[in-house]
Amino acid sequence: MLMQLKKILPLAALAVALPTLGMAQEAEAVADAAPDALEAVTALNTEMVFIMNSLLFLIGGFLVFFMAAGFCMLETGLVRSKNAAMQATKNVALFSLAGIAYFLVGFNLMYPLGDWVIEGWLGGVAPTVLEPVGVELADVDDIEYASIGSDFIFQLMFCAATASIVSGAVAERVKLFPFLVFVVVLTGIIYPIQASWSWGEGFLDELGFLDFAGSSIVHGAGAAAALAGCLVIGSRYGKYGKDGKVTVMPGSNLPLATLGMFILWFGWFGFNGGSQLAMGTIADVADVSRIFSNTNLAASGGAVAALILTTILYKKPDLTMVLNGALAGLVSITAEPLTPGLGMAVLIGAVGGVIVVLTVPLLDKLKIDDVVGAIPVHGFAGIWGTLAVVLTNPDATIGAQLVGIVLIFGFMFVASLVVWLIIKAVMGVRVSDEDQVTGLDKTDMGMEAYPEFKN
Amino acid sequence: MLMQLKKILPLAALAVALPTLGMAQEAEAVADAAPDALEAVTALNTEMVFIMNSLLFLIGGFLVFFMAAGFCMLETGLVRSKNAAMQATKNVALFSLAGIAYFLVGFNLMYPLGDWVIEGWLGGVAPTVLEPVGVELADVDDIEYASIGSDFIFQLMFCAATASIVSGAVAERVKLFPFLVFVVVLTGIIYPIQASWSWGEGFLDELGFLDFAGSSIVHGAGAAAALAGCLVIGSRYGKYGKDGKVTVMPGSNLPLATLGMFILWFGWFGFNGGSQLAMGTIADVADVSRIFSNTNLAASGGAVAALILTTILYKKPDLTMVLNGALAGLVSITAEPLTPGLGMAVLIGAVGGVIVVLTVPLLDKLKIDDVVGAIPVHGFAGIWGTLAVVLTNPDATIGAQLVGIVLIFGFMFVASLVVWLIIKAVMGVRVSDEDQVTGLDKTDMGMEAYPEFKN
Amino acid sequence: MLMQLKKILPLAALAVALPTLGMAQEAEAVADAAPDALEAVTALNTEMVFIMNSLLFLIGGFLVFFMAAGFCMLETGLVRSKNAAMQATKNVALFSLAGIAYFLVGFNLMYPLGDWVIEGWLGGVAPTVLEPVGVELADVDDIEYASIGSDFIFQLMFCAATASIVSGAVAERVKLFPFLVFVVVLTGIIYPIQASWSWGEGFLDELGFLDFAGSSIVHGAGAAAALAGCLVIGSRYGKYGKDGKVTVMPGSNLPLATLGMFILWFGWFGFNGGSQLAMGTIADVADVSRIFSNTNLAASGGAVAALILTTILYKKPDLTMVLNGALAGLVSITAEPLTPGLGMAVLIGAVGGVIVVLTVPLLDKLKIDDVVGAIPVHGFAGIWGTLAVVLTNPDATIGAQLVGIVLIFGFMFVASLVVWLIIKAVMGVRVSDEDQVTGLDKTDMGMEAYPEFKN
Repeated sequence: MLMQLKKILPLAALAVALPTLGMAQEAEAVADAAPDALEAVTALNTEMVFIMNSLLFLIGGFLVFFMAAGFCMLETGLVRSKNAAMQATKNVALFSLAGIAYFLVGFNLMYPLGDWVIEGWLGGVAPTVLEPVGVELADVDDIEYASIGSDFIFQLMFCAATASIVSGAVAERVKLFPFLVFVVVLTGIIYPIQASWSWGEGFLDELGFLDFAGSSIVHGAGAAAALAGCLVIGSRYGKYGKDGKVTVMPGSNLPLATLGMFILWFGWFGFNGGSQLAMGTIADVADVSRIFSNTNLAASGGAVAALILTTILYKKPDLTMVLNGALAGLVSITAEPLTPGLGMAVLIGAVGGVIVVLTVPLLDKLKIDDVVGAIPVHGFAGIWGTLAVVLTNPDATIGAQLVGIVLIFGFMFVASLVVWLIIKAVMGVRVSDEDQVTGLDKTDMGMEAYPEFKN
Repeated sequence: MLMQLKKILPLAALAVALPTLGMAQEAEAVADAAPDALEAVTALNTEMVFIMNSLLFLIGGFLVFFMAAGFCMLETGLVRSKNAAMQATKNVALFSLAGIAYFLVGFNLMYPLGDWVIEGWLGGVAPTVLEPVGVELADVDDIEYASIGSDFIFQLMFCAATASIVSGAVAERVKLFPFLVFVVVLTGIIYPIQASWSWGEGFLDELGFLDFAGSSIVHGAGAAAALAGCLVIGSRYGKYGKDGKVTVMPGSNLPLATLGMFILWFGWFGFNGGSQLAMGTIADVADVSRIFSNTNLAASGGAVAALILTTILYKKPDLTMVLNGALAGLVSITAEPLTPGLGMAVLIGAVGGVIVVLTVPLLDKLKIDDVVGAIPVHGFAGIWGTLAVVLTNPDATIGAQLVGIVLIFGFMFVASLVVWLIIKAVMGVRVSDEDQVTGLDKTDMGMEAYPEFKN
Repeated sequence: MLMQLKKILPLAALAVALPTLGMAQEAEAVADAAPDALEAVTALNTEMVFIMNSLLFLIGGFLVFFMAAGFCMLETGLVRSKNAAMQATKNVALFSLAGIAYFLVGFNLMYPLGDWVIEGWLGGVAPTVLEPVGVELADVDDIEYASIGSDFIFQLMFCAATASIVSGAVAERVKLFPFLVFVVVLTGIIYPIQASWSWGEGFLDELGFLDFAGSSIVHGAGAAAALAGCLVIGSRYGKYGKDGKVTVMPGSNLPLATLGMFILWFGWFGFNGGSQLAMGTIADVADVSRIFSNTNLAASGGAVAALILTTILYKKPDLTMVLNGALAGLVSITAEPLTPGLGMAVLIGAVGGVIVVLTVPLLDKLKIDDVVGAIPVHGFAGIWGTLAVVLTNPDATIGAQLVGIVLIFGFMFVASLVVWLIIKAVMGVRVSDEDQVTGLDKTDMGMEAYPEFKN
């Protein structure tokens, strides 16, 4: 580190030593170099901040990456076994495509860095280019922030999460390739444009809308896109009878779904903690620590609230509700994981858990078939979390939060609806009822997720 | 970092430059500022230590968090499928409740920081309060240690682990809510009091008892609470026949249990590595590295020993014994993962593996029904690990280790027994035999873990 | 950090202050201490680099460790359920034995640090010894690199990966203990010798062969050992009919295999990122960030290419091909994850995915029974990745790459073949056809992976 430090500091030493020895003239010349030495010490400081910030993004990157596995396990465990291989395929493919779309278009659309097509509303259009190999200080894009690559990998994972949310809601009846086309548009264009409004320093940021790690920007956005999808694609065959009867279609592998929830919780430390965007000062690392603690306790609050409430309402606890309660707690704290105290974090999460328990049946009444409960968990709890920012963050206003929520959900829903409708018209989006009965694994893939376990 | 550095250092530069230029008076004044510059350099150093220590806890925190998933998968895989959803529910709920209980009571009970109710024996009573948002140096609780939030999240995970250990032992017959009441008392009160004796600088610490990362303080403690639970709740229906016959009740999903073991091993790098409590010096990071290496090799030793010994004893290897052997190796090294050499680490772990293979049948002879082998793995191997500290750490004495083991196991067992008995009297703790035959998933939750896979 | 800093710097301050006060003589004496102060600042820098580099290895260590779980889940999910417990046992045991073998022999054989038995070809023979507890600066092995323990744990995981690759290929018919004997020789001797040629600064390194994180050195090496194993052990009973008919033997748990793939992808951030070997400068952390981004996008490219190509070739997508496509993308970028741009990373990965789709059927034509597709994924894509270095790294030559590939694959194959043949002669390597029909879990372990799920 700082090869130049070694070169400059001896000059400063001479500036100290020479006058003592009565060599005034030499000392004078050397003294000019002293300020350079100070610059070098400051540079060491600068360097460490850059390294620690980048490291935070790298750690956040792999943690949030793992949420892709969490979503996949959660969803694969909550669908019926005849659609489990398809659900796994969708999750691997959507994450892969999200990466490519975000690299080609999304990242610069989301972070135009002043280079807007329409100031504050529509970002830049160019593929992502990282800093060169072995970058030197002078060529670093933003020395007070972090390396572009670390930022890219971190932000990419958020983008991919929106698509993972959609895949759970529309499971068991959406066609694979039409779904993947939607994913490409969502992750390459729709989400990045919306996210640029707040995190790319666009107009919502100007307006004072606050959403720390994305209760609305990521989770609500995914839920809105999912809702549009559910409406366009329709419910699973047999889900809603003509007599209003709702057929329960239980998940085929609840331990796997539980694992998925735990992986999501694990990844959420990176999701929220990394969104501090800095770890190179005492204040920043202590803030990241607050965020870790609050994130964990909000999940606790959500899970416990869902456990108790389902037991009260239905006499028996419900594992999938507990899982979704924990996730709703996580979503709820995501808009402001820093400023609440620990007790408030528990409460914010608990309200999220209550919301999920109360709204999951609501969707069924509306005959909106959300297979894994993604819309309540990520959408309704996301709205709650975004509003709850005003409880603890004095910089937040209920007005700005409401405007943000309406615009984010509205844009995400409408844009997604248009794309879903176009895809429906061009390719079709829905697997036929007959094939749904057989199961997508066999009809669309010719394989089975658990070929030996069937009844 | 260190905005003040930039302000102070130029003064130091002037102190160097001015005398050279013959401006003695100005130089004299400026020279007074020079020591401040040195303070600033020292402050940079201090800051980096604080950041690195906090980062160690944050990394340790998410790694040990994931052990909750590991315990859940291990236990869910080792119970019969009719109880798998219940086992998953218990694990999610216990972890959630542990977080809330530890925040409300446990953390300050365990780390009173001089504020004891009874000096050295009973810690402080107050909910956890973290450092304020954007904390400044002057407001940091302990600048030579780490941020409170990072310490809280790390220590919380250890507390939750004790409850995870219990849930495995009493699986398949304990009632959900009575179990959760026990968890709240265990994680909020019993464990923190006991742990304060050593890690909160209580009387066992004074006595010279050494348990680096908790072979006894965490694992033994969980095992003692589990043993009390097993005795109060009784064995599963049908486990022990009147003729002394022991019915084998094989785990329903061994690949999932294997995953659980791997996740636990993964998390153990944080468990033991994070317990170095510091990473901001060459010595500390090298020590964490030693700990990682020893931890890994002890697990290797335990797994290999169990593999070989089961093959010798029973002619065939046994996967669950290999899994438990690896875990026993991990538990064994946990009391002292730093001072052993690599070869000694293998041996310490191997003895742990042997202990498990030999003591699992012992419990069955005593008709103590420990579903996953938690008492041998965490209790017997924990005792061994705590004693083994004297082999490599010259600061340890066999006397202090024995006193610590007796007091920790004794207190944990008695306190847990009392709590279990009270819960039994008030709420009941045991699911009826009929419901055990049907399975807890159906009777107590109205759902199935794998609704499509049953025979 | 740097206790000496506090002692030395005040002297420097006096050197500044004293001449100002006219105390020339004292100043002169004190001034001699000034250069020491500069050394102290440089030492802080040195210390931070050492800490950050070691931390990179520790993070890389636990990430790559988790790949052992990934391999285990992938392989256990891709075998038939009657062999799943055995496959899990093999994976736990191989990882455990690899640790012991690498500690006893492998590490110093691979990194002789000048202490070669045969210069550049055969490394040193001695068990690994770590730096002492609480190591001081003067006793650190290589202050510009990282702690030995951090390096050991990181490199060990690479070594273990080669064995994991083999276990997948030879699954469902290799005997447990003969397989484990092979693992010990592979991880203790064969792999370390081969890897020393490049990474231990041996003759291939001299020759200019470049393989950043081991497309050939690790993945190709594992594939070559696997190929030798497949040839010696023969195909599974019933796999290849006399009429040339290939019987498909579908994996029993594809969601678990999918999880395994995701865990491997997760771990690969450590595999490739950690191979930068340094994180203590702006350039290094930015390079690690590039590597994370490229690694992720290569996996994306591989998965998408496999998805599209299987759909084109077979009309339907294939989940296992998508999983292997992602893995092949990861293997392909591993030889050079730093120099490509993001678009090139996608392409390099995509070619890997194409290679896998095209070569998996080829092996079946050759009646080489590679259960999980390890040879195409790690071998053929590994060769491609090693060659692809020349596309973006100007230091690479096609000649040196070819020589490296031929020697690595040749040595690994021949050495493995000899060892497999010796083991076959001494112990036998193949489970009897009858026992294969019954399944290894029952015949060789007396247990079942999923005792309740069978048809």
